[in-house]
Amino acid sequence: MHKSPSGSSLGPGGLDLSQAFFKPIQSTAPPSATKRNTKISVIGVGNVGMAIAQTILTQDLADEIALVDAKEDKLRGEMLDLQHAAAFLPRTKINASVDYSVTAGSDLCIVTAGARQNPGESRLNLLQRNVALFSKIIPPLVQYSPDTILLIVSNPVDVLTYVAWKLSGFPSNRVIGSGTNLDSSRFRFLIADHLDVNAQDVQAYIIGEHGDSSVALWSSISIGGVPVLSFLKNQQIVYEKETLENIHKEVVNSAYEVISLKGYTSWAIGYSAANLARSILRDQRKIHPVSVLAKGFYGINGGDVFLSLPALLGRGGVLGVTNVHFTKEEEQRLRKSAETILEVQSQLGL
Amino acid sequence: MHKSPSGSSLGPGGLDLSQAFFKPIQSTAPPSATKRNTKISVIGVGNVGMAIAQTILTQDLADEIALVDAKEDKLRGEMLDLQHAAAFLPRTKINASVDYSVTAGSDLCIVTAGARQNPGESRLNLLQRNVALFSKIIPPLVQYSPDTILLIVSNPVDVLTYVAWKLSGFPSNRVIGSGTNLDSSRFRFLIADHLDVNAQDVQAYIIGEHGDSSVALWSSISIGGVPVLSFLKNQQIVYEKETLENIHKEVVNSAYEVISLKGYTSWAIGYSAANLARSILRDQRKIHPVSVLAKGFYGINGGDVFLSLPALLGRGGVLGVTNVHFTKEEEQRLRKSAETILEVQSQLGL
Amino acid sequence: MHKSPSGSSLGPGGLDLSQAFFKPIQSTAPPSATKRNTKISVIGVGNVGMAIAQTILTQDLADEIALVDAKEDKLRGEMLDLQHAAAFLPRTKINASVDYSVTAGSDLCIVTAGARQNPGESRLNLLQRNVALFSKIIPPLVQYSPDTILLIVSNPVDVLTYVAWKLSGFPSNRVIGSGTNLDSSRFRFLIADHLDVNAQDVQAYIIGEHGDSSVALWSSISIGGVPVLSFLKNQQIVYEKETLENIHKEVVNSAYEVISLKGYTSWAIGYSAANLARSILRDQRKIHPVSVLAKGFYGINGGDVFLSLPALLGRGGVLGVTNVHFTKEEEQRLRKSAETILEVQSQLGL
Amino acid sequence: MHKSPSGSSLGPGGLDLSQAFFKPIQSTAPPSATKRNTKISVIGVGNVGMAIAQTILTQDLADEIALVDAKEDKLRGEMLDLQHAAAFLPRTKINASVDYSVTAGSDLCIVTAGARQNPGESRLNLLQRNVALFSKIIPPLVQYSPDTILLIVSNPVDVLTYVAWKLSGFPSNRVIGSGTNLDSSRFRFLIADHLDVNAQDVQAYIIGEHGDSSVALWSSISIGGVPVLSFLKNQQIVYEKETLENIHKEVVNSAYEVISLKGYTSWAIGYSAANLARSILRDQRKIHPVSVLAKGFYGINGGDVFLSLPALLGRGGVLGVTNVHFTKEEEQRLRKSAETILEVQSQLGL
Repeated sequence: MHKSPSGSSLGPGGLDLSQAFFKPIQSTAPPSATKRNTKISVIGVGNVGMAIAQTILTQDLADEIALVDAKEDKLRGEMLDLQHAAAFLPRTKINASVDYSVTAGSDLCIVTAGARQNPGESRLNLLQRNVALFSKIIPPLVQYSPDTILLIVSNPVDVLTYVAWKLSGFPSNRVIGSGTNLDSSRFRFLIADHLDVNAQDVQAYIIGEHGDSSVALWSSISIGGVPVLSFLKNQQIVYEKETLENIHKEVVNSAYEVISLKGYTSWAIGYSAANLARSILRDQRKIHPVSVLAKGFYGINGGDVFLSLPALLGRGGVLGVTNVHFTKEEEQRLRKSAETILEVQSQLGL
Repeated sequence: MHKSPSGSSLGPGGLDLSQAFFKPIQSTAPPSATKRNTKISVIGVGNVGMAIAQTILTQDLADEIALVDAKEDKLRGEMLDLQHAAAFLPRTKINASVDYSVTAGSDLCIVTAGARQNPGESRLNLLQRNVALFSKIIPPLVQYSPDTILLIVSNPVDVLTYVAWKLSGFPSNRVIGSGTNLDSSRFRFLIADHLDVNAQDVQAYIIGEHGDSSVALWSSISIGGVPVLSFLKNQQIVYEKETLENIHKEVVNSAYEVISLKGYTSWAIGYSAANLARSILRDQRKIHPVSVLAKGFYGINGGDVFLSLPALLGRGGVLGVTNVHFTKEEEQRLRKSAETILEVQSQLGL
Repeated sequence: MHKSPSGSSLGPGGLDLSQAFFKPIQSTAPPSATKRNTKISVIGVGNVGMAIAQTILTQDLADEIALVDAKEDKLRGEMLDLQHAAAFLPRTKINASVDYSVTAGSDLCIVTAGARQNPGESRLNLLQRNVALFSKIIPPLVQYSPDTILLIVSNPVDVLTYVAWKLSGFPSNRVIGSGTNLDSSRFRFLIADHLDVNAQDVQAYIIGEHGDSSVALWSSISIGGVPVLSFLKNQQIVYEKETLENIHKEVVNSAYEVISLKGYTSWAIGYSAANLARSILRDQRKIHPVSVLAKGFYGINGGDVFLSLPALLGRGGVLGVTNVHFTKEEEQRLRKSAETILEVQSQLGL
Repeated sequence: MHKSPSGSSLGPGGLDLSQAFFKPIQSTAPPSATKRNTKISVIGVGNVGMAIAQTILTQDLADEIALVDAKEDKLRGEMLDLQHAAAFLPRTKINASVDYSVTAGSDLCIVTAGARQNPGESRLNLLQRNVALFSKIIPPLVQYSPDTILLIVSNPVDVLTYVAWKLSGFPSNRVIGSGTNLDSSRFRFLIADHLDVNAQDVQAYIIGEHGDSSVALWSSISIGGVPVLSFLKNQQIVYEKETLENIHKEVVNSAYEVISLKGYTSWAIGYSAANLARSILRDQRKIHPVSVLAKGFYGINGGDVFLSLPALLGRGGVLGVTNVHFTKEEEQRLRKSAETILEVQSQLGL
């Protein structure tokens, strides 16, 4: 008998009704001949994971969404809460399970699960617990979806994207960290808000480590294609370097501020991940600052390190990295970012 | 000097830059000549209020969104979290304040604020506290947006929609409760899930009180326009009345189940309210089961009572109530719903 | 060297620039590992074909669109005209060629090509020319996309869908005619316009032959789920059968009227085909009145005949046919429709 | 009695049915209290006007669309063809008339009407006929929608935008020509196609006269915010000026090419106008290269002239002009563009 995911039933006559209502046409091919749909799995249904899943659902980016979490009650509650909106949305199949088999055949797996820092716990210890967590998440994802693309959102995102890459055995174009995609949106919002223009008309990147050592690319900020720094120079408007640094500081501080105010961040990271999912799954060939294997770029040669660079994303994952011209200072800061991350990685023993 | 909502600043040169970057054309009319945009205010930024605001933002239903809540920190955190996604979305102005002046000129005000039940508190006492809360919310909303439409989501939604109507002095077409719009989506999901069809192809209503005494309109369920009950009769498929009642029970139980599993409901009510907002603001003239002034319909004559009936919604709010044929039993149940609500209202002393 | 579809070139340095601008990351998998996108081909770039292609592009239903026509100039002009809008739309790959290899790997092939009636030409002669045309179109489509779904729009749509089915050798679930999907939208518009409600709230079907012998299913018209005929009966409103027939006549006459006024129909059939494409490719499991292999339904037993019935559409094509209850008269008319089509088919010698 | 725009009727019982089906709720305000919706009028229903109207309909940019043309049959045919798609789209009111009263209360009026060149006719004579045509179009538009924004698409667009400005008496922020918005999309497409990136990631402007004397702003082309010319310089890639000029020539030639191939252009200009309509009506504050009153910018001081400059568009129309840094050569070319247009205008005697 047909059993709905929510356990509903029209009683003993259930299957009969469905069979009575719709009849197959003659000489129809068996269903196995039908093709697979676009499927996205989200691992971890906390505030971040659910903001991502719900935004993907609203933006109609997938035909099927699978949720995985260790907390069975919370998981089922979130699944039902999304399913109940069926009459208001295009049809999307929504499943959830503590068992990774529910993710089978995913085109994209978004990992948001992560351990929380215990009081007094060292950052290294926390990281080691997260590595242990990933060693339980990544292998089954790879097993059930050997062709999937991995999008890592859990923090510290750069190191954990590296960890996911090592654990998956995937080529590096199929392992991406959300990195500074959100930092860059915050940066663009602050500039757009100041000039009262649309943030989508502001080109501006934060790159490097997602965190305190991130690098603002002042040299390449432009508004509607007009480079801002050379504009200021042409207009003989003097800008204190300090002023620029304050905007960057405000971006770095944004996440901390939102956390201190509401307890966590959710909506913006949800939109950021959905934005990346669209570029990847709809083969948009758009440039995003995301965490990629950075070895060999901009003088980063110390080892395998993931950090955010402006990367071209499409159906194949990372299609290339933009060969931007950095100033000496920007390049120096980026290399320092890389060293910081590498040092942490060296302690993991992977 | 231009001060951004998030407190950012490009330093002393702030305004200069904006003025230098964009110059007005000659003989331009003053900005006062420009027209007002579509504006939605959401009162209460808890899980429900934020799910509504975020869904409205993702679905691009408003040019301006205003948030109001008593908790200043939470309010600012939620505003920033939405604003930070600016680069991923069409431009929408997002403001938030504890002061109701931020709602001025709203086309639609969605009220989600509500007191929570204290341990051992009677339902009447809780309701009286909610009435007291509404007496602080509704008058300033009316003052700042005298032409607005009020959409009440707070529970108990039917009584509180009546309270909002009394406090506002608005004509009844401009005061609407979200009512059983969500219950009906759950109902349609369960039927659609059972038959494995799109829930948007299922026509089915839950009406009456949003709660345990709601009424399922079995007589008017249809799939793609095919009435189900007469179909079953024609097919000589025998359905036990008990089977049908179990589906209705499952709908009634849905909210309790989600709350017991994840602690609250949010996503589905968010989609439900956004769905109503679209029908109203884009003048869709669609039929929704929502809480309206029901006096004079289906033999409800005992007094001014709000409960859910299939209503035609458009830019003017409630444009009419569908004159559906109910069975005797359905009509009886509906009148009982009305009596229950009226009795509660009589204790409020409004 | 990279050669753009429009023949543009950045000169001798073309490829160099692209290679200089984007660098691959290390250990990237070869592009062959990337997955195929959603691809739709449209055969025939006349007014109907282009309205379909442009609506599919605007609604972002495909990652790749291929156009085929025999007129090379017109074909290239239409392709360029769509491509030039690139900055205003999500990225979609648009190709065009007189060679069917451009359609390789399509998920859906929409056939709009058809011969026009010559002065004095008999309908049979015209049909035979169209069969000849299809024998040049269908085999290469099947060759280049053996798993595709065929959506036939060319007229007479029912017979030509049968022809496409025979020529393709496909199982019948993968050969669909646009049939009365548009007639039903016109029917719903006329009813909705009359009642001043949203046409999406009107459930109403025209079925049978797409043409003069089509059948209006009066018995199953409902508004927001409320059956209209039984409503009228309950309200003791007397409706002349003639009145109902006039609405049906107006629907049948609609196509002729638009053709007499503007010379052809285009927009509405464009939206209709895009609507079907969405239900199929996004696996929406929605019910549409489309032309399907009708043998065995509603007493149609005379032979293999395609005509419109309310069918459940999804990623597998036709998933089933709704088992609606027809009145005796409706069923009789439907069978007569079937006989008319079968008689025409018998003259084709397929 | 309610009379549908398409002349349909449910017979003598028409109004009765509507009144029977929906009943007003008690103490409902009169409909005059409801607010006006977003309304767009399109003047001229040729290929360009209809591509614009249909794209606006598909993209759901207006609650009401009004069409005006002198050819009554064609006009009614186009209106019906759009209305027949009602079941596939959100509800939009579509009206059409030869009488301008149908445009009353428009937020945006898009003018596409224009005389065609007769064999042997001089350009000046053609222009004078177009001025005569505009003197019949603009005054009634202004009369029925005194607060509207005028978007001129008819060619020669720069001179006719000036003519519309003079005839309307509007402040210059409310008179806009589509100008080089489409040329710039073609420019961005050619560059994006060459680099195989998303055209939305390419910032590049064609400005000045919409036509042969347009100016490509090479100095401000950037890909994802990376300035291309300085990138090439940094990479020591030598680019012949001739190569760049060839791309510009290809853009200028694009319109001619499409016209020679398919007889006219339609889709791309349709998307371009819909793109401008969205930025204006949804207050997007985005930068578009459109025809604006250019006096006082970049040394253009010879008189009142409209030509395309990167302008900030929002609900108030033109909010400002971007103060881009041009090279000497770019500025010189722009001024020459201005002189050419002014000379034409001087012959019009307005």
